[in-house]
Amino acid sequence: MYLHAQKLIHEIADDEPDPAAANALQEGLGGQFGEMRTMMQYLFQSMNFRGKAAKPYKDLLQGIGTEEISHVELIGTTIARLTDGSPRYQGKSTDPIDSPGAGGATPLASALTEGNIHHYLVGAQGALPVDAAGNPWSGSYVYNSGNLVLDLLYNLMLESTGRLQKCRIYEMSANKALRSTVSYLIVRDQAHENGYAKALETLGVDWKKVLPIPKTNAEQFPEVKKMVDLGWQSKQYTFDLTGASEAAKIYRGASPSNDGTQLDATEQAPEGAPLTIADERPEEFAPGLDPELLALIQATADLEMAEPEMTYGPL
Amino acid sequence: MYLHAQKLIHEIADDEPDPAAANALQEGLGGQFGEMRTMMQYLFQSMNFRGKAAKPYKDLLQGIGTEEISHVELIGTTIARLTDGSPRYQGKSTDPIDSPGAGGATPLASALTEGNIHHYLVGAQGALPVDAAGNPWSGSYVYNSGNLVLDLLYNLMLESTGRLQKCRIYEMSANKALRSTVSYLIVRDQAHENGYAKALETLGVDWKKVLPIPKTNAEQFPEVKKMVDLGWQSKQYTFDLTGASEAAKIYRGASPSNDGTQLDATEQAPEGAPLTIADERPEEFAPGLDPELLALIQATADLEMAEPEMTYGPL
Amino acid sequence: MYLHAQKLIHEIADDEPDPAAANALQEGLGGQFGEMRTMMQYLFQSMNFRGKAAKPYKDLLQGIGTEEISHVELIGTTIARLTDGSPRYQGKSTDPIDSPGAGGATPLASALTEGNIHHYLVGAQGALPVDAAGNPWSGSYVYNSGNLVLDLLYNLMLESTGRLQKCRIYEMSANKALRSTVSYLIVRDQAHENGYAKALETLGVDWKKVLPIPKTNAEQFPEVKKMVDLGWQSKQYTFDLTGASEAAKIYRGASPSNDGTQLDATEQAPEGAPLTIADERPEEFAPGLDPELLALIQATADLEMAEPEMTYGPL
Amino acid sequence: MYLHAQKLIHEIADDEPDPAAANALQEGLGGQFGEMRTMMQYLFQSMNFRGKAAKPYKDLLQGIGTEEISHVELIGTTIARLTDGSPRYQGKSTDPIDSPGAGGATPLASALTEGNIHHYLVGAQGALPVDAAGNPWSGSYVYNSGNLVLDLLYNLMLESTGRLQKCRIYEMSANKALRSTVSYLIVRDQAHENGYAKALETLGVDWKKVLPIPKTNAEQFPEVKKMVDLGWQSKQYTFDLTGASEAAKIYRGASPSNDGTQLDATEQAPEGAPLTIADERPEEFAPGLDPELLALIQATADLEMAEPEMTYGPL
Amino acid sequence: MYLHAQKLIHEIADDEPDPAAANALQEGLGGQFGEMRTMMQYLFQSMNFRGKAAKPYKDLLQGIGTEEISHVELIGTTIARLTDGSPRYQGKSTDPIDSPGAGGATPLASALTEGNIHHYLVGAQGALPVDAAGNPWSGSYVYNSGNLVLDLLYNLMLESTGRLQKCRIYEMSANKALRSTVSYLIVRDQAHENGYAKALETLGVDWKKVLPIPKTNAEQFPEVKKMVDLGWQSKQYTFDLTGASEAAKIYRGASPSNDGTQLDATEQAPEGAPLTIADERPEEFAPGLDPELLALIQATADLEMAEPEMTYGPL
Amino acid sequence: MYLHAQKLIHEIADDEPDPAAANALQEGLGGQFGEMRTMMQYLFQSMNFRGKAAKPYKDLLQGIGTEEISHVELIGTTIARLTDGSPRYQGKSTDPIDSPGAGGATPLASALTEGNIHHYLVGAQGALPVDAAGNPWSGSYVYNSGNLVLDLLYNLMLESTGRLQKCRIYEMSANKALRSTVSYLIVRDQAHENGYAKALETLGVDWKKVLPIPKTNAEQFPEVKKMVDLGWQSKQYTFDLTGASEAAKIYRGASPSNDGTQLDATEQAPEGAPLTIADERPEEFAPGLDPELLALIQATADLEMAEPEMTYGPL
Repeated sequence: MYLHAQKLIHEIADDEPDPAAANALQEGLGGQFGEMRTMMQYLFQSMNFRGKAAKPYKDLLQGIGTEEISHVELIGTTIARLTDGSPRYQGKSTDPIDSPGAGGATPLASALTEGNIHHYLVGAQGALPVDAAGNPWSGSYVYNSGNLVLDLLYNLMLESTGRLQKCRIYEMSANKALRSTVSYLIVRDQAHENGYAKALETLGVDWKKVLPIPKTNAEQFPEVKKMVDLGWQSKQYTFDLTGASEAAKIYRGASPSNDGTQLDATEQAPEGAPLTIADERPEEFAPGLDPELLALIQATADLEMAEPEMTYGPL
Repeated sequence: MYLHAQKLIHEIADDEPDPAAANALQEGLGGQFGEMRTMMQYLFQSMNFRGKAAKPYKDLLQGIGTEEISHVELIGTTIARLTDGSPRYQGKSTDPIDSPGAGGATPLASALTEGNIHHYLVGAQGALPVDAAGNPWSGSYVYNSGNLVLDLLYNLMLESTGRLQKCRIYEMSANKALRSTVSYLIVRDQAHENGYAKALETLGVDWKKVLPIPKTNAEQFPEVKKMVDLGWQSKQYTFDLTGASEAAKIYRGASPSNDGTQLDATEQAPEGAPLTIADERPEEFAPGLDPELLALIQATADLEMAEPEMTYGPL
Repeated sequence: MYLHAQKLIHEIADDEPDPAAANALQEGLGGQFGEMRTMMQYLFQSMNFRGKAAKPYKDLLQGIGTEEISHVELIGTTIARLTDGSPRYQGKSTDPIDSPGAGGATPLASALTEGNIHHYLVGAQGALPVDAAGNPWSGSYVYNSGNLVLDLLYNLMLESTGRLQKCRIYEMSANKALRSTVSYLIVRDQAHENGYAKALETLGVDWKKVLPIPKTNAEQFPEVKKMVDLGWQSKQYTFDLTGASEAAKIYRGASPSNDGTQLDATEQAPEGAPLTIADERPEEFAPGLDPELLALIQATADLEMAEPEMTYGPL
Repeated sequence: MYLHAQKLIHEIADDEPDPAAANALQEGLGGQFGEMRTMMQYLFQSMNFRGKAAKPYKDLLQGIGTEEISHVELIGTTIARLTDGSPRYQGKSTDPIDSPGAGGATPLASALTEGNIHHYLVGAQGALPVDAAGNPWSGSYVYNSGNLVLDLLYNLMLESTGRLQKCRIYEMSANKALRSTVSYLIVRDQAHENGYAKALETLGVDWKKVLPIPKTNAEQFPEVKKMVDLGWQSKQYTFDLTGASEAAKIYRGASPSNDGTQLDATEQAPEGAPLTIADERPEEFAPGLDPELLALIQATADLEMAEPEMTYGPL
Repeated sequence: MYLHAQKLIHEIADDEPDPAAANALQEGLGGQFGEMRTMMQYLFQSMNFRGKAAKPYKDLLQGIGTEEISHVELIGTTIARLTDGSPRYQGKSTDPIDSPGAGGATPLASALTEGNIHHYLVGAQGALPVDAAGNPWSGSYVYNSGNLVLDLLYNLMLESTGRLQKCRIYEMSANKALRSTVSYLIVRDQAHENGYAKALETLGVDWKKVLPIPKTNAEQFPEVKKMVDLGWQSKQYTFDLTGASEAAKIYRGASPSNDGTQLDATEQAPEGAPLTIADERPEEFAPGLDPELLALIQATADLEMAEPEMTYGPL
Repeated sequence: MYLHAQKLIHEIADDEPDPAAANALQEGLGGQFGEMRTMMQYLFQSMNFRGKAAKPYKDLLQGIGTEEISHVELIGTTIARLTDGSPRYQGKSTDPIDSPGAGGATPLASALTEGNIHHYLVGAQGALPVDAAGNPWSGSYVYNSGNLVLDLLYNLMLESTGRLQKCRIYEMSANKALRSTVSYLIVRDQAHENGYAKALETLGVDWKKVLPIPKTNAEQFPEVKKMVDLGWQSKQYTFDLTGASEAAKIYRGASPSNDGTQLDATEQAPEGAPLTIADERPEEFAPGLDPELLALIQATADLEMAEPEMTYGPL
């Protein structure tokens, strides 16, 4: 059972809208090695897990898998911000229904030549479950052989490939919103690489000098360096509400990345950053409320409400 | 940000393994109108939501979307139990690596003729992200137009279609494990139907006699009737860890299903049922641990561990 | 612009429901060489046609393409009849909403083991736009190179492959409903083979003895023989409402199939057979009308209506 | 059974070729909510229809479905005109085979950077069965649950989404050929919205103020306003050649769009506009006739032909 | 540049036709972890290889990739033999065109219920480029990140997964034709596992006890044991016609599988087994030659022919 | 069984990197009518071939199919060269790991706007198994009906369509690397067209003036003319290492293209051109070797190696 906190797992820096940057980020969301895939892969591996003696391994998968849902939320929100307003429409009309294309204007003209036209035509300046070449996400991506060694090996390769692709995305754009999310995910992918590599170490493998994959250095990615200096590449939250996770039995000891840090999995969750709601975009008919419907919406929003009955936190 | 509780949202009744029942259930997991789709659709609609005045609508989407992740976990686990052991292999060997196919035996022979062969060949007697005809789940299923009325209308249709398909699955098999999960989801889909129908009522629509869709009666589905008598079709949890959800501003008042109940969304989460770990299946090489690897796994499991540092519950 | 006559292009013989036969027929509807494909391919070739001097070739494509829409209707209706009632449910209940699965019965149990489960789970005992292995129809099937010789060559191959597959389907089942439609389409595919082969003859090709493809003989397919004796393999209707078709400039003279007949394209349309409406299937919740909704439907059906204002036929 | 009239359902305004506009229009042809989809969805819903008492509903589906085939023809032809000549090749060569790329020239160079390269590489400057992101049309788009209320609800949502996307396309380009077709389809989609909304009204639903979806106003889309002033959004032709359609029993009375008009379905078909044949494009080898083949084509075109034997109109 | 020897890389044992066994084998041919995928993956990794200093690694990829083409040929031929004649048609008619379905018989009836119907309807009792669930092979399977460590890690996982799936297929059927090919491929997959594991050893990784994956033992798979006793799991041919391969610089020394053998890559190619041509199947119209066409074929076969001019062997 | 010679089948001219040209070429590699498709189609037709009397036809398929693997290698290598260095990164760093993005630079920025972003993000400036619109290659492309006449007819159409598309690609770019490969393939496709057309001639068809398809002339494509003057369009190698091919019994006599040449198939293989290995691209982390790993690689490359034991050539 899952619960949601109205927070983003990491904050997104402000910058200009950028449809091409948004499109590149789609690979990290809906691509074959993106967050939707890691999320689904680990959730399936957890559901189908075999071997009671191996509970710490299941808990590691479940914890990382739960984090990946928050990564889907983070990268999806980043894409939404990068597409929002990118056609340079100001969106400050006092009459939101009628003005956008008044007299036959073309407020969405830029969609023909920049980024993925579906961001403006199928979605309303928001994220889509597709990759950077426009291919929809596919269930055939999910790997779950049931063999523990193979699943761990695949996951190590998967996190490393995700990290490789995010390093390449970093090199494609200096947009700060893109960079803040991509840099965070580069660090978190390494944290997950470390988890799967460590799990294989408990089974005997000695990685020597090949990790991390890909080899990078701090100077190359300044935003990444700041987070590495905080040790985020060696920390894994349990994301577990029942206190039952045994992931810390694996996620401990010297990092397989040979950076001198110790792995740590003794905290439940990070603090997070505020979640906000985007403004309306009349040229997209989103949400498409005319004054009559808006009044009805407002009436609903103005209702009084009792305190909910809580089973879980916040503590 | 999401967290996980090591519980199933609803318990699964015990019954015999049944590969054909498992295959039918795949439609409810990876089908076009299954739980992976509702989950992804509502998470995307939440991420891309527009209109600050409409926060209760976003919170309704976010809350139902979070519940759908638990439904993925529930139906996936049900499929795993229905496939587990279905080839009638006893799995009690004292020498788990060598016995399954000793001397060239065919412990997986039933996979050639029953259910989906991929349950045994690609997975290790577990759930897959595909539908009942074997098609992988596709990102092209997700609908998120950005227009609030359209998104609500689609969601109402989506939940109703999901419920229709689950009623048909119910009529296909009397297996108790299948039935306990399918009946629960029939009731929950109606709870979601009610939520989206009510949201459209706040915008003026009067549904009169057309809801619920499909029309069913209590006598037809005895397992469903028990849950309807408890009012579960009119209850929506917030699944929100920050106490900030305003979904209850919509999910209140008389049910659009005309069954005389009042909608209620004042609780955070249900109690849930225990999550367990499946036994190993040597004939699938899952998890495929020989004595040497098993000893290493056990050493990890035996480690001492500190209490985790909790931010959220349990209270 | 297209119009519809409430008639089937050919009648369907009565026989028992047969889910496996229905599934085999799906190849002829939604398969790579089925009727949806021929229809779409010829409509695209007509829309994108180049060369004013070549109007008879365009008219040939347009006429055959229009006939293919009627073939989609014929084969789809045949599949619907073969699936209808196949789970052996009698459907004669006086209380259509409540009886089908009364007390937890399994009226759809046969769907787990016979034919395509989607016929009962996703559709309501009706045709689907998929092939016999369950793959959805794809736009990537459509071929339209724009080169006239290549398009004609492809079409000749396409009709021959369609006919080959229908001969194989004929050999798979003796169900009379399947056979009446399959035999008719074997003959019509040959009529289209003749059309494209003749068009290539006007450009100089001499086919000698290779046509028709595949080689069959009359004795092998008795139902086919009856229609061949009527000369239907050498006849092409214009299906044109404006009297402007010049297809008969190509579709004339000795048949390229070397059967001694003369091609003929001087009639507009065949007589056709009655179209009927299927009974409801309460176990599918189709159409799912309870007494209240049924009364509303009946009120609509009982309304008086003026004569429509006609521009086209019947003469 | 279907017939074809050699007419376009609406005329296409003249304007410059425009590959980007053509690509955007592909969403309206081969996209998930485009004309190929509405056409196929309604044809399947008609074929698989259940309930003799509900014939007016089937006739409504059949009539709109038949119109959608003409919409496929209209939008496909518009795309063909927008791609035709877009690489700025004049196409007036006296020696059509040899001149286009004489001496190694690159008459198709613009295909590398504008619109969809497949318009020039796979097709010969013509329409393709794909969406604006290049994904082929898929049979998985077709929805036909068999439940009448659900199918009507889906169709209402489908037409509204189609209309929403066409409003967005309108805002992307001021090309007159694109606009004349898109504006016409915006109006016709609303006519279909009205039909499905009205059908749900006969079952009791009261839409109050939510229709039409999306909310637009006349001033915003001048080309649309002209057709709305003619009342085309409230008119539905039967497209039925047998005079048997009962769609007018539903399509009558006050418009659910609250624009003060009365719905009307008492005419068979609109007048239509002339269909023409495109010029050859030697650089595409389309149709690729050298002088010898051209002479053979001309010989066929010069043949005399008898009057066809007509069963249906024109009256 | 590639050349072909008219030999199978390994012989196929004789046994009865078996459509279900043929279908299971399709996973090994066209599945996500089958031979078409390994072949394509290694050919792409070779073409796109970077780093002149790393030539032995490229040569290892090229050599294994070339072997995989022969594996496609072997497993495809095995499937063809297992489907051939499976409908129990004797195929010994003296009049091959007319007899199969004489008088409306159903010689292909078994296709409706056994294996994949496409083996009989789309193919003519032969192999298809699809997996065991009927999904067509996809280019999206191919992994080639360009990062050497990642590509090697993926390949190790890929070969191990292929071997895992083949062990499962072995356990599904005792058919000797299936077993001879599956057992051979289990051994060869291990030989490739050893190659990629060894390549990672040269980069420092120490696998200790985790290899091979999956863990099996000799007694379980008697046919495999015979080939392991011959050391085939530790031998890699160069399949190189220019004598330039440096794969043996990697493929040498103690096996990473810890079985006490030494790796060896000093031979060019194995001896192979005879390739034969299948008999015709008149009920499939394959090859579909009537007496006239057969006479023409024979005339071609009877022609005299000069010795070809050879550049490469046999020596 | 297949072997590989470390040679390209034809040399690639040097020119500037060009991402748009690379993307267009992808259609010739991974497109529906590209080299991966011809290769797979002919390999499947060979494996599934029926009819011992028709061995020359099988050998023709096998020989052309083998050549197509070399074409995959040629066009893939061409794409790799055209993408390599296209982001204008000089790649001459002395510290390959750290310099590419030093200080947060964007060496891959051009990937956002030129060609297919996957060339830089998923691949490392190399070829991908996709078409020019980014769709992955699909097994559903492969046609193998088993009917000899149909398979030959399809193959003739396939080669002609491939040649048509390559003529269009030629007209899209004057890049010399693109042109040298495209021109070679235009000539080889015609050689294959001639082979299949001739095979149909042996069955009686007389093509008169319709071949070749498309009609081109020498002056239009200067690079093609040079190879046509050498007669390469009328020559087919056996690519057979056992001297057993009988393809020359078909591939002989006057060319069906009416160009006055005689077909010839008496040589085993062309000479070929050198294969080289690309430089590393640090900004892609390809191959991603830091100094420690590089030293290990070098140690492997420096090993001594025995002469391999050869079974086949070179002679």
